[in-house]
Amino acid sequence: MALSIGASIRGAIALLALTAISSAIAVAQTAPPAIPDAAQSDPKTRGMMQGFPPPPDKIIRFGDGSSSRFPNTRWAFSHIRELVPTGNVSRGDKPSSPLPRAEQDLGKVSLQTLDGKTVSFADALGLTYTDGILVLHRGRVVYEKYFGEGAADRPHIAFSVTKSFVGTLASMLAAEGKLDPNAQVTKYVPELKDTAYGDATVRQVMDMTIGVKFSENYADPKAEVFDYARAGGMVPARPDYTGPKTFFEFLVTLQKEGAHGDAFAYKTANAEVLAWIVKRASGMSLANLLSQSIWSKIGAEQDAYFMVDSIGTESGGGGLNTTLHDLARFGEMMRNQGKVDGKQVIPAAAVADITIGGSKANFEKAGYTLLKGWSYRDMWWITHNDHNAYMARGIYGQSIYIDPKAEMVIVRYASHPMAANAANDPVTLPAFMAVAKALMK
Amino acid sequence: MALSIGASIRGAIALLALTAISSAIAVAQTAPPAIPDAAQSDPKTRGMMQGFPPPPDKIIRFGDGSSSRFPNTRWAFSHIRELVPTGNVSRGDKPSSPLPRAEQDLGKVSLQTLDGKTVSFADALGLTYTDGILVLHRGRVVYEKYFGEGAADRPHIAFSVTKSFVGTLASMLAAEGKLDPNAQVTKYVPELKDTAYGDATVRQVMDMTIGVKFSENYADPKAEVFDYARAGGMVPARPDYTGPKTFFEFLVTLQKEGAHGDAFAYKTANAEVLAWIVKRASGMSLANLLSQSIWSKIGAEQDAYFMVDSIGTESGGGGLNTTLHDLARFGEMMRNQGKVDGKQVIPAAAVADITIGGSKANFEKAGYTLLKGWSYRDMWWITHNDHNAYMARGIYGQSIYIDPKAEMVIVRYASHPMAANAANDPVTLPAFMAVAKALMK
Repeated sequence: MALSIGASIRGAIALLALTAISSAIAVAQTAPPAIPDAAQSDPKTRGMMQGFPPPPDKIIRFGDGSSSRFPNTRWAFSHIRELVPTGNVSRGDKPSSPLPRAEQDLGKVSLQTLDGKTVSFADALGLTYTDGILVLHRGRVVYEKYFGEGAADRPHIAFSVTKSFVGTLASMLAAEGKLDPNAQVTKYVPELKDTAYGDATVRQVMDMTIGVKFSENYADPKAEVFDYARAGGMVPARPDYTGPKTFFEFLVTLQKEGAHGDAFAYKTANAEVLAWIVKRASGMSLANLLSQSIWSKIGAEQDAYFMVDSIGTESGGGGLNTTLHDLARFGEMMRNQGKVDGKQVIPAAAVADITIGGSKANFEKAGYTLLKGWSYRDMWWITHNDHNAYMARGIYGQSIYIDPKAEMVIVRYASHPMAANAANDPVTLPAFMAVAKALMK
Repeated sequence: MALSIGASIRGAIALLALTAISSAIAVAQTAPPAIPDAAQSDPKTRGMMQGFPPPPDKIIRFGDGSSSRFPNTRWAFSHIRELVPTGNVSRGDKPSSPLPRAEQDLGKVSLQTLDGKTVSFADALGLTYTDGILVLHRGRVVYEKYFGEGAADRPHIAFSVTKSFVGTLASMLAAEGKLDPNAQVTKYVPELKDTAYGDATVRQVMDMTIGVKFSENYADPKAEVFDYARAGGMVPARPDYTGPKTFFEFLVTLQKEGAHGDAFAYKTANAEVLAWIVKRASGMSLANLLSQSIWSKIGAEQDAYFMVDSIGTESGGGGLNTTLHDLARFGEMMRNQGKVDGKQVIPAAAVADITIGGSKANFEKAGYTLLKGWSYRDMWWITHNDHNAYMARGIYGQSIYIDPKAEMVIVRYASHPMAANAANDPVTLPAFMAVAKALMK
């Protein structure tokens, strides 16, 4: 459930094999397994977790792994705090900022998917197993829908969208002179001296050009991403588990593989290392830093929260949970160069350092066939398209899509059967662009 | 950590044996173990859970049981959500209500403890290992202090104060005609037919006059209170644990012992059964019912939260966590017969059914030597003193003390080394009365 991986096709296939097929195949071994569609997998329709107690076959738990399996994920992603320990990100005590509304029937917008089908934006929401979506245009809510367990006042897990928050905090600390991107990682975290990060710079971590032996290949049971998740309590460990029991204990085991600085390689461990750096540079926990510097200043409606490991350390790689309203407020602040209601919340330079983008050549080497010409900077995905759009992306379809030219922010939470965004990008990317163009008319 | 027991002397001795002594005795086997005082056990002074990561000897965890042991409890009781899964009690989206201030130096108020010592109210806070205390007089904050990890914006576990919330919700549903106290328990929970509750009424559950084989004797490792806590995930279970895995699964195992209706017998299982009844009568989870009917209507500043079991069921016996500000708002609503700012939040009849009190004769049979003349009604403790004060009480010193005559509400969160309130009542009860009298001058 709580694994954060890259949007590679390999990942999509691996996750498909592990989650969707593995559960379906027990039912039908001869015919190709049919993956339930959005309506069929709706946890409300399926009666999941209803009643006191729910019937035994409608119960979803963390400890037995059932919360990690599609279609149970359609319920679990909106109920993370009921499954695992969490750390609060306080909104403070101020009234929330208004989210003015100017609704449009964007559901009728037509688009062509990357595999050539013509569908409506409303159809696209089903195809991407959307739990909730909100579109801001010039700061006003023009479209907002929830499905299944999605609800305006219920936080949903953001998965690797979390990384973009960590990258933004790092960029903010750099702009404030509290963090030097050109410094060695060991300046902030000497404990990483004998690891892959021993000769890396903070900038290399921020842009994920680290040569580290860390596989996110879910088809390989020995992939380090499972060690990471077990160490952080994001997936249940077996009773006889004797490995690292915190994120910190896991990170100091990572060894170098290849060079730093040459190629983009999406590895969740880098985000967790950056979170460690950010904590040391600020002297604050991730939850408190996010609360103090952003969450309490954007007019958030709800506290956010992080999944935490057994000693309360937040998962900077994929553990943040927010409402869409508040995620939209954050996206709108980014679109406005760090300002909310004309007031600077984070330095404009912090946002500029993100939107300038990273090295396209480095990105190209990662082989994302659906993301040609993109780059990765400060843990954000930069499209370099003619709208200069940039994204925060998390597995199963979590998205912040900021389109400066269209003056638009789209935030979406989803629970797609397949983890890697390569599975939903063929619908998602044209859909977001189609809405942008519709709003520009 | 999360066990809810009665304020019996037996409990105090048992808990002392289990928690305070057992950890101290390893250090000094010859001399009587010295229990650290409030200052010595302050988690900030001790450097607990500071740093990224904290030093190994300063780490507190749930899984290894360290969060349950004094003095670690002084940190853990303010950080429950970082240790276990929790369910949110939303405050809604309205601005919080003001808490007007008219501060007085009540720390100098003098009092005589039940064992004859003369101390100041400020001294009493240390003697009771107070994490936070707030005194309202005529709705204004006259005194507010925090110690250790206590903080105005940080929820603390209320332990069995939770029961009084469940009792209040039950009384509210009864006043609204949605719950019949005279009905059989099985009208609402037929699953309890073959248990101790099969021939009990809702009223008997509300007033804890149930004959059920359920021991809260912590000195007996076979006491059912441990089965309860393990089933609800409130204490860590061993890897080979095969018992009930939810509150529901545990409750249906309880067998009758003695008669119903004759004697007060404080047993946490009754509160959990009442929570089940309340869920069935309202069709809502405890968290949602509390949010909708009370928390969103008293001007709360913060969401509250419940500890939950492995299927998300809230602990109605002892799992609620709130800030003191919001606990005080709730207490003030009770003092005002269910009104907040002149507006009825819960029916006045619901409060009247509590303050009328229960049977003193039934209470007397429970043998609380420090609580002579008291009674128990709707899961509240009624002093029947000349101020008509009544209390919600949780282990380790959690308290709501409502003194109608003095127009005063005291809320206190604490982490006393001994669970049972018999350990702190000799200081607490005279202290609360001394403050009441000082305010009446």
